[in-house]
Amino acid sequence: MFEQMLKSESVWLSGEGPEHSVVLSSRVRLARNVKGFPYPPTSRSEGKRETLEIVKAAIEKSGSLKEGKFYFAKPIDELDRAFLIERHLISPEFLGDKANQGIFIGDGENISIMINEEDHLRIQSIQSGLSVESACELAERVDEDLGKVLEFDFDREFGYLTSCPTNVGTGMRASVLIHLPGLALTREMDNLISSITKFGLAVRGFYGEGSDVLGNLFQISNQTTLGRSEDDIIDSLLKVTRQMIEYEGKARETLLADAKDQIEDKIWRAYGILKHARVLTSAEVMNLLSAVRLGIGMGMIKELPVSSVNSMLLLTQPAHLQKYLQKRMDSGERDEARAELVRKMFQNGSETFSQEEAL
Amino acid sequence: MFEQMLKSESVWLSGEGPEHSVVLSSRVRLARNVKGFPYPPTSRSEGKRETLEIVKAAIEKSGSLKEGKFYFAKPIDELDRAFLIERHLISPEFLGDKANQGIFIGDGENISIMINEEDHLRIQSIQSGLSVESACELAERVDEDLGKVLEFDFDREFGYLTSCPTNVGTGMRASVLIHLPGLALTREMDNLISSITKFGLAVRGFYGEGSDVLGNLFQISNQTTLGRSEDDIIDSLLKVTRQMIEYEGKARETLLADAKDQIEDKIWRAYGILKHARVLTSAEVMNLLSAVRLGIGMGMIKELPVSSVNSMLLLTQPAHLQKYLQKRMDSGERDEARAELVRKMFQNGSETFSQEEAL
Repeated sequence: MFEQMLKSESVWLSGEGPEHSVVLSSRVRLARNVKGFPYPPTSRSEGKRETLEIVKAAIEKSGSLKEGKFYFAKPIDELDRAFLIERHLISPEFLGDKANQGIFIGDGENISIMINEEDHLRIQSIQSGLSVESACELAERVDEDLGKVLEFDFDREFGYLTSCPTNVGTGMRASVLIHLPGLALTREMDNLISSITKFGLAVRGFYGEGSDVLGNLFQISNQTTLGRSEDDIIDSLLKVTRQMIEYEGKARETLLADAKDQIEDKIWRAYGILKHARVLTSAEVMNLLSAVRLGIGMGMIKELPVSSVNSMLLLTQPAHLQKYLQKRMDSGERDEARAELVRKMFQNGSETFSQEEAL
Repeated sequence: MFEQMLKSESVWLSGEGPEHSVVLSSRVRLARNVKGFPYPPTSRSEGKRETLEIVKAAIEKSGSLKEGKFYFAKPIDELDRAFLIERHLISPEFLGDKANQGIFIGDGENISIMINEEDHLRIQSIQSGLSVESACELAERVDEDLGKVLEFDFDREFGYLTSCPTNVGTGMRASVLIHLPGLALTREMDNLISSITKFGLAVRGFYGEGSDVLGNLFQISNQTTLGRSEDDIIDSLLKVTRQMIEYEGKARETLLADAKDQIEDKIWRAYGILKHARVLTSAEVMNLLSAVRLGIGMGMIKELPVSSVNSMLLLTQPAHLQKYLQKRMDSGERDEARAELVRKMFQNGSETFSQEEAL
């Protein structure tokens, strides 16, 4: 399942879009519920089944969702589920209730809709680079379209109603995935994280809360939705993100001025290890790719495009690796296969890596 | 000074000779004193000056020491002294008393004679690979030759007399420089070192006592000289060395059977770091070269001859690096220059590295 996704590169990892050397992707997600139906956490099986069918029908009728595919949760196995999580198309909590959940994935993966996650609908749009506004536009277009067929639960005073009170209002969560190796190296991240929090935004590492921040990848997102307009949310996210990009640039300048040799050394060692290692864990590969990505951003590494690094960040994740190599593997086997794949991708050098080739 | 030595590779690092993949070199050193003169530790300046002249004259007359050069200590500066120590031509204690010391270095460096170190003469022969017997033969030929002109202090009961009682008897110290990465990785070295000690042999790391063992290089040498014949000393050294070579081979087999991927990974990571790093300390470079040397020995790395690794082990040492690049450098500058030199030598790939090229 989802093999066609492996054939074409995920749009939002193409290394294009504004500020793409620092911002990998922008995401906007809207939470919506269909009026008159209990929300998923309190709904019985039949109720969920009904909303699933209603939403599916609405998607099929929607003009903006012609290109794409609808999947029922049932045939999606654990590996496919992990694959979708790694691709940021579903939340880690999703697809637990296989009987009554489903997902629509638009071609190119710019748009996706989870049905019967915490809310009836979670409409998500991802774009490459710093493109929060266009992600928002796309999500809102879909929202509007679906709203013609479905009546969403909306309160004049509060706005859209959702299962969890933190989403009430716009129902919107907007976020950017940002690569901040310079700020991590100059040890400024901790301070910046606490100032960002004061703006009503949250910062967390790329993967899951609580776990270590890997690859110096951070996700910045809005915390509150109630009492704020969509524009308001997006403005403050953009403002803070632009500030972070500026700080990151300054941190890189500082590193070049104060510790050029150490930084060059760190970057080229990472390059050498990735190019030659025989065993690589997923955590290590992210940290090494982060250093190489910094090297490309600083103009030190010229023979590798940033899109290749983005591809490697995606393809070296456990589920991707297994689907990509069409082989179920335990953790030890994956670490070897991961190193082999990375070696091949490095050997391909400056050519953009063709995913077909490694198969 | 000594520039001509940099032009031609040191014979004993050529990566030739018996068992050269494990044994880098064999050394035999004979301590001798001229009868009728106080030994250096208790001699006054004039006395030392006199023995220096006598020994120099004897060397000039000797048939076996026609090819080579005599150096007075005085013009040898600290960098040159460090260079000779790194080349194992002099002991770290030598050339402190510049006024009354000197050294003869035979062409190709197979033979050298320190004058007025702890004893009047220290005749040393180095050979590549496991060649203790031929090193011994050469040292004894020189000893015999010089003995025709000089009368050495010899006691019927004790043998040759020396400044330090541990050298009395044959005055001989025989040693091998051996690379044991397999035994280090299987953590068998500590046990083996204590068994070797029971045979009257000593094992120490490549550089200085007390310091960390670098590059998994060990020197095995006889401890006692009194009451043992030259043949006896050499036999027991050869026997133990052959045993160590066998153990090392078994350790490598075990590693291949039990942890092939981890070992390959370790070796190729070292290769990748050496090929790309921008800063390398002398300690790190030895440890990384050790792993690459193991990789060559195990047939994993084919594009680099072991002689290149041996050259790098020699040339990356602090004094060698400075003389080779003809530039005085502090420790930080050396770490960068070292990484640059190693990168160049790795880029040269399979061709044997020409020392001229890097200049």
